[in-house]
Amino acid sequence: MNEFDLIRDVFQRHEAASHAVNQSPSDALIDCGIGDDAAVINTGLNKLVTCTDTLIAGRHFPNTTSAYAIGYKSVAVNFSDLAAMGSTPHSILLALALPQHLKEDKNWLDEFANGLFACCAEHNVQLIGGDTTKSDVLTITVTAMGFAEQCIYRNGAQIGDAIVVTGEIGSAAFALTEIMQGKPSKLQSALDTPSPKVEVGHWLNNQNIATSMIDISDGLLQDLGHICQQSRVGARLDLEKLPTHPYLNRVDLHGRLALQLSGGDDYELLFTCPKKQLNQIKQCELETSLTIIGEIIELEANKPIHLFYENQSYLYNGKGYMHF
Amino acid sequence: MNEFDLIRDVFQRHEAASHAVNQSPSDALIDCGIGDDAAVINTGLNKLVTCTDTLIAGRHFPNTTSAYAIGYKSVAVNFSDLAAMGSTPHSILLALALPQHLKEDKNWLDEFANGLFACCAEHNVQLIGGDTTKSDVLTITVTAMGFAEQCIYRNGAQIGDAIVVTGEIGSAAFALTEIMQGKPSKLQSALDTPSPKVEVGHWLNNQNIATSMIDISDGLLQDLGHICQQSRVGARLDLEKLPTHPYLNRVDLHGRLALQLSGGDDYELLFTCPKKQLNQIKQCELETSLTIIGEIIELEANKPIHLFYENQSYLYNGKGYMHF
Repeated sequence: MNEFDLIRDVFQRHEAASHAVNQSPSDALIDCGIGDDAAVINTGLNKLVTCTDTLIAGRHFPNTTSAYAIGYKSVAVNFSDLAAMGSTPHSILLALALPQHLKEDKNWLDEFANGLFACCAEHNVQLIGGDTTKSDVLTITVTAMGFAEQCIYRNGAQIGDAIVVTGEIGSAAFALTEIMQGKPSKLQSALDTPSPKVEVGHWLNNQNIATSMIDISDGLLQDLGHICQQSRVGARLDLEKLPTHPYLNRVDLHGRLALQLSGGDDYELLFTCPKKQLNQIKQCELETSLTIIGEIIELEANKPIHLFYENQSYLYNGKGYMHF
Repeated sequence: MNEFDLIRDVFQRHEAASHAVNQSPSDALIDCGIGDDAAVINTGLNKLVTCTDTLIAGRHFPNTTSAYAIGYKSVAVNFSDLAAMGSTPHSILLALALPQHLKEDKNWLDEFANGLFACCAEHNVQLIGGDTTKSDVLTITVTAMGFAEQCIYRNGAQIGDAIVVTGEIGSAAFALTEIMQGKPSKLQSALDTPSPKVEVGHWLNNQNIATSMIDISDGLLQDLGHICQQSRVGARLDLEKLPTHPYLNRVDLHGRLALQLSGGDDYELLFTCPKKQLNQIKQCELETSLTIIGEIIELEANKPIHLFYENQSYLYNGKGYMHF
């Protein structure tokens, strides 16, 4: 049972049942519950967008990761989820479970806080509360809150839409393979201090361009699969178009594509938009690159995503990222 | 370094620094950050109140605790924090880190979810999102969101105010001592499925009665200490007045008072209010009992809280609850 099965089988079912029993007067306020990058509550004036993500030592980051990177990334991964809804981060809560030796390590705590606040400062976000406790396993759960006038969901992709991604894909996964082999990696910052694409998400939302959006932190294939499933459409990917850091050319093509399709830990956005909007996208002056990598097609039973490389069908049996 | 030192020394300092550097246009929206039961964001129409609390197996609950109780309590402890601000719970996010054997245990997961949703249903609250992952240690972090028109903080207690608590004090701590000795306890439900005093908090807020409020989950002395510190006042407690379940009479007086002063895990509210409001409180028709246990006095240097038992000064050297 993977993360998605677990959420669906146990919690979504229970929620539905409990929802049916209790007709709370405030039910109408919830615009979006489980099943997107973040939840959306309509507060009346604007939408409150919230999400929570846990990082666990040795599972979500190698044990050699610096305290600064752990602090930075624990915030960044949540801002990426908020960005995927088109919302702007506002504040965070921090639940920190620390092993005794770290609790007594002032340098580690300072560096962790430096990383955490660096990511917050880049987005004008404040830490407004939290909980600290002891645990045998370093576990960081950040809850992020953001606001938006409206949101972009996973379920709006239309047949004929272009599929667009921000930045480059596969860099973090490649850095991880190098680090796990004990090598230094030129792309370590992609793994350690990813840049959530908040500005892009906000711009797409303001311009009313994107029909659907998701962050591809669990791997391109898996996350595009969520768009397909929730929008009830298929997708064609042209793999030669995947935006790739030149450093990844040292990997053979199939190995590189596996990292890009299933590697995960890329805090980039994937969105769909009508092709007539592409000019607007090409002319935008964002600092992040945008690359068209495919298009939304009709859904074929049991095969939502069709892979092509230079117009030849590309066979790939890998899956999305499961935390190591 | 305990939880409070850690938050203050590392995170509050950093926050202040980062705040000073970044004059975000949305800063004004934060009514209350670190240092109260929950954070308060002014959304324009009303206040969004948020808090997060982590429960860790073997630390916040004995390993023998039922899955139902773990699910229930992980929600209840957060609702207690929201209640202490005078806010009404609206929705939760769940970050669940599961050991492999529990992830595969459908019965455990179902019972956990049953407990979690039972507490949610009692307060018309919905689970709107979350994150599940694997960990060697069962770790549950719930973030709760509530709303209020205004909030009750820790810093408003006035000299001459009465000190009032809800319910009974010490029951959970006594149940824990029995369970840790391998005995069954008549008060197990106080430990396993505590009732957050949401209705009382809401009523006090609506009536404009309380000048300050806190939940006493970390122990009466420690939490009253927070009120004294933040309100810059002292307190006199009349220990013979502490509301006590008859089952605790099997403990000698000093042992029982130690449980009540420092035991923790009581999800009751403590609030202060002008004495002229006491009639209003006595006439309220809430299901929860309210008991006057002391009064707010002038602050004496280094001795915020004065303990009396039947008007005799009572010597006590214990401290607040630190998780076992």
